[in-house]
Amino acid sequence: MMNGKRNIEVCLSTALFPLFNVEGSIVVVVDTLRATSVICTMFKNGVEEVIPVKTIEEAKEYKEKGYLVVAERDGKKLDFADFGNSPDYFVPEVVDGKTLVYSTTNGTNAITLGKDAHQVLVGSFLNLDAVVNHLKAQQKNVFILCSGWKGKFNLEDTIFAGAVAEALLKEDEFTTICDSTHAATDLWGIAKGDLVNYVNKAAQKERLRKMGFDSVIPYCHTPNQTNVLPVYRGGKLVDIAEK
Amino acid sequence: MMNGKRNIEVCLSTALFPLFNVEGSIVVVVDTLRATSVICTMFKNGVEEVIPVKTIEEAKEYKEKGYLVVAERDGKKLDFADFGNSPDYFVPEVVDGKTLVYSTTNGTNAITLGKDAHQVLVGSFLNLDAVVNHLKAQQKNVFILCSGWKGKFNLEDTIFAGAVAEALLKEDEFTTICDSTHAATDLWGIAKGDLVNYVNKAAQKERLRKMGFDSVIPYCHTPNQTNVLPVYRGGKLVDIAEK
Repeated sequence: MMNGKRNIEVCLSTALFPLFNVEGSIVVVVDTLRATSVICTMFKNGVEEVIPVKTIEEAKEYKEKGYLVVAERDGKKLDFADFGNSPDYFVPEVVDGKTLVYSTTNGTNAITLGKDAHQVLVGSFLNLDAVVNHLKAQQKNVFILCSGWKGKFNLEDTIFAGAVAEALLKEDEFTTICDSTHAATDLWGIAKGDLVNYVNKAAQKERLRKMGFDSVIPYCHTPNQTNVLPVYRGGKLVDIAEK
Repeated sequence: MMNGKRNIEVCLSTALFPLFNVEGSIVVVVDTLRATSVICTMFKNGVEEVIPVKTIEEAKEYKEKGYLVVAERDGKKLDFADFGNSPDYFVPEVVDGKTLVYSTTNGTNAITLGKDAHQVLVGSFLNLDAVVNHLKAQQKNVFILCSGWKGKFNLEDTIFAGAVAEALLKEDEFTTICDSTHAATDLWGIAKGDLVNYVNKAAQKERLRKMGFDSVIPYCHTPNQTNVLPVYRGGKLVDIAEK
């Protein structure tokens, strides 16, 4: 808390995470293209639990134990996995009531970083308002962790961080002295008028285009498709939204 | 080179530097508040050479050998040093023809990182056009290294990076696929109409204000006060601008 207000910080990539202290804060993990958008889709469509794992080896071990496994690296489904990283896979008929094991290039690693936090929450444009309303309702500092791309800054996670920060800073209870938060909010101000067009210049759009996946971009940038609130608890993601 | 064009990358803080490859590029090191602005002032006022050193111990050793030493940490002059980090010290009467040893919290460390680069150049608003014209004239990729604050992102270095990138991207020979470059350029687009007012929200402004140094901000954000081109060569900074 600063001057009795709740503080907002943005971490622009996982490589910068060790420089921050998140003790007592709510950490919002962001990997809009695509991990956190996919996780919101999973819970929207009835998944019971998601187990994020960092390594391919861990994902394989779960597969051998009989779990349904979602695993990609650099955007491509791994051979042994049941699903790749496209939200299209996770329709209710396939995933309702299931537990999924999930390993990705950036996002699932980011989820496991916030051990010292009060709570680790998964955010994407799909559940933007749900995330903002949850953060407003808790008496905690807010830390938005952008996954980035292999440690580097990316645009799409940053503008999401800006969207959350802008919404919170409209409330008198929140404040920031974090330059990354100002930058994210300013970039969101530019992007929000035509979000998909803005993301067209992002490097990740080009990576997805090369693999034929760029049609996912409008979906991942359509706000408020669901009210799910996936939180990381005891090694698993569960949805804490009131049903 | 990408498709025959020269590539521009921006690194938003020294903590991210290990993720990049700068071999063959020109690295522009930026610490506008205050190290690289101070270095431009030093050369503008006739300094012969600047020896950047990382540690306080190294700075002390040079002091014992009889060198003039500039040393600060967290904005404050160190007791043993001849000068702190304010550009006001380095008037021609005091520094013309001299060699200075220089150690700061962020900027001097950043200067020593670009070992693999074709050239390491010191940039600030003070020598903005000189930097841009030099980069245009060389057939090299461009890598802009923002010093940040103790590894974290800062606004003031980022908008300078955006100013350089915007100027280069107007030329057909330059291109970028770097999200940080897009972000820096967009933030510069917001900031440039009223640079000092924009920087008022930066955390560094508040740190300087607490120490009574914030009057330096207008000076450090007044473009094109000098044509110096300080480059790091054989452990020293020298000015390569044609006189």
